[in-house]
Amino acid sequence: MLVFESPKEVQLFLKQLRGEGKVIGFVPTMGALHEGHLRLIRKARKESDVTVVSIFVNPIQFDDPGDFQRYPRTLHEDRYKLEMEGVQVLFLPSPEGMYPPGYSTFVEVENLDRYMEGAHRPGHFRGVATVVLKLFNIVKPHFAVFGLKDAQQYYIVKRMVEDLNLDLEIVPHETVREPDGLAMSSRNRLLSPESRKQATALYRALKLGKEMMFSGERDPKRIKAEMEKLLRTEAPLGKIDYIEIASLPDLQPVERVEGKVLLALAVRFPEARLIDNFILIPEDGLVWNERID
Amino acid sequence: MLVFESPKEVQLFLKQLRGEGKVIGFVPTMGALHEGHLRLIRKARKESDVTVVSIFVNPIQFDDPGDFQRYPRTLHEDRYKLEMEGVQVLFLPSPEGMYPPGYSTFVEVENLDRYMEGAHRPGHFRGVATVVLKLFNIVKPHFAVFGLKDAQQYYIVKRMVEDLNLDLEIVPHETVREPDGLAMSSRNRLLSPESRKQATALYRALKLGKEMMFSGERDPKRIKAEMEKLLRTEAPLGKIDYIEIASLPDLQPVERVEGKVLLALAVRFPEARLIDNFILIPEDGLVWNERID
Repeated sequence: MLVFESPKEVQLFLKQLRGEGKVIGFVPTMGALHEGHLRLIRKARKESDVTVVSIFVNPIQFDDPGDFQRYPRTLHEDRYKLEMEGVQVLFLPSPEGMYPPGYSTFVEVENLDRYMEGAHRPGHFRGVATVVLKLFNIVKPHFAVFGLKDAQQYYIVKRMVEDLNLDLEIVPHETVREPDGLAMSSRNRLLSPESRKQATALYRALKLGKEMMFSGERDPKRIKAEMEKLLRTEAPLGKIDYIEIASLPDLQPVERVEGKVLLALAVRFPEARLIDNFILIPEDGLVWNERID
Repeated sequence: MLVFESPKEVQLFLKQLRGEGKVIGFVPTMGALHEGHLRLIRKARKESDVTVVSIFVNPIQFDDPGDFQRYPRTLHEDRYKLEMEGVQVLFLPSPEGMYPPGYSTFVEVENLDRYMEGAHRPGHFRGVATVVLKLFNIVKPHFAVFGLKDAQQYYIVKRMVEDLNLDLEIVPHETVREPDGLAMSSRNRLLSPESRKQATALYRALKLGKEMMFSGERDPKRIKAEMEKLLRTEAPLGKIDYIEIASLPDLQPVERVEGKVLLALAVRFPEARLIDNFILIPEDGLVWNERID
């Protein structure tokens, strides 16, 4: 595995490979790699000649400096895992390399960032859009894989790619879960044993909301109220940031459940804030971002 | 000359040419082409295999709807001029093609947009940065030529290209002037004969400011006061928007003239608002963006 720290050097190297006709697949990450990341990487490996993974804990997407400090960093293990997966290129930039003195340019995807994560983490998606655009410009992949656990991020990145006429495909990947249903996340390892146990309630709340929709319930208020009740009972250590039902792909809260919707929630445990979601078509009884078992 | 209206089609076509090893030079314009544009195009022609010109009066960079309405549109003559120059590709997108329903993504270059044009035309550089990034992503040129009459725009675009890791060169071109010194601009044709006569005072004011600097004056206030006096006397039809001396490349007003500076002004005539500038190194007695005669 080749490791690059300089944006200019990896850009030049990959330009050459692209010139030789190689298909480049890209998986941007913040490291602390888990099985969810590895599944994204395997998908990229299958469809590309050269798989590029970036590890960069992007300071400008953290609204909370404490969260940035605490964010797990496990570079040694990450490199080993990437070697094992047969990743050919690891891009490992420094904050100074990405944001040198005088750095001034930021990208905003309006409206789609107004609710859910966008409302609760001011500036978060501005930081995400900016770093993702920079990474795309450096790597210039034919496609990039994004996990649907971060559903709002996926739709925002997709919108940006279309709006800015970027010539690449955004490939979604279903949410990967622990056996007990908890969505995989780098932040899970920060949880106390008690929080970890209660955190499975997020998945149960989503399943409850889904069942209500599949049974014909179309009033978001009633669905959200039942989910809230479940979370309050089964995850008392968690403070609910939001439970939302939003239209897709424009991510606006709905008055009535219709067509494809995002059912999303965020819960703040003492050690870490967790998010999870289902992307549903209730009329068809489908959850798009879940494995069909 | 091939003419494309669809972003996707011109993108695909140019991708093929780039794959064949052709060097692509790009000159983005808003049309109403004059000798200034043609000089930029000749520069691009000289250094590229394929010269691409875009004509697009970008609605999102106009803070004043009246200015957008009045902006001259001379497509028939423009096409003839481009044919005569040997331009191979004209990209002529529609507003709906560039900003389809649901369009949401915008680029901001902070701090550099705080003064001069940025202060007097709110949102202007956001619109410029966004459309220029889109055009770069569509055309993917090896280099793009920008005229230094729009000095602040040049520095903002250059900053954006560096910040977003775009793999292309921004080539500056000196300001092109009428025989009486008026900087060429598509808006000049809107001026009444009386305004047109008085408009030459902008150039004389810049030369006065330059002479004061070259004679050792380092106080921006005194230089600006003398320039203002000249404009008030010689261009009574014009309302001064600003006279500014700013540091480069960061475009902040200076307390003392030192190193490379931008001496810029904007004057509002009844029919059109005009801008002009010198980029100077007073210590060396040099004006960077003027022809040396």
